[in-house]
Amino acid sequence: MENDDVVFIGNKPVMNYVLAVVTQFSSGANNVTIKARCRAISRTVDVAEVVRKRFLEDVELKDILISTEKITSDRGESNVSAMEITIGK
Amino acid sequence: MENDDVVFIGNKPVMNYVLAVVTQFSSGANNVTIKARCRAISRTVDVAEVVRKRFLEDVELKDILISTEKITSDRGESNVSAMEITIGK
Repeated sequence: MENDDVVFIGNKPVMNYVLAVVTQFSSGANNVTIKARCRAISRTVDVAEVVRKRFLEDVELKDILISTEKITSDRGESNVSAMEITIGK
Repeated sequence: MENDDVVFIGNKPVMNYVLAVVTQFSSGANNVTIKARCRAISRTVDVAEVVRKRFLEDVELKDILISTEKITSDRGESNVSAMEITIGK
């Protein structure tokens, strides 16, 4: 689990995150975990797919996790879905 | 793989799909696969999480697959991300 990096997915275009993931691999990461919550989850799948289909063909899916996280805001607590995809060599 | 059912996730509210999945299980399905493309992917995770955390606690995650699908429309071919989550007893 050394050399593992995490990229959090937000609302920027998919290619921004693809670049972040490719950069992590080229600076020596063996695995990169892509994480998101709520609506950004779809983008997580896009990022993982674009990286392994278009940029780094030696990278494969290692793990996909889904979970529920509690978020506390001004309006109280709410449950949101979260996803983590780990890809690696 | 008998008694397996598929629920396709679209743009309706999450609870519509939760109800569809719970109904499949109560009419005898052992596994239910929840499928979506593009932006509906986030909702797939919501449906799986709500079903197993709030409604059917004996149901667990069996499999999560992500893939890229080619879609042909008036504007030509495009690639979209797709996800399948299988939950079962």
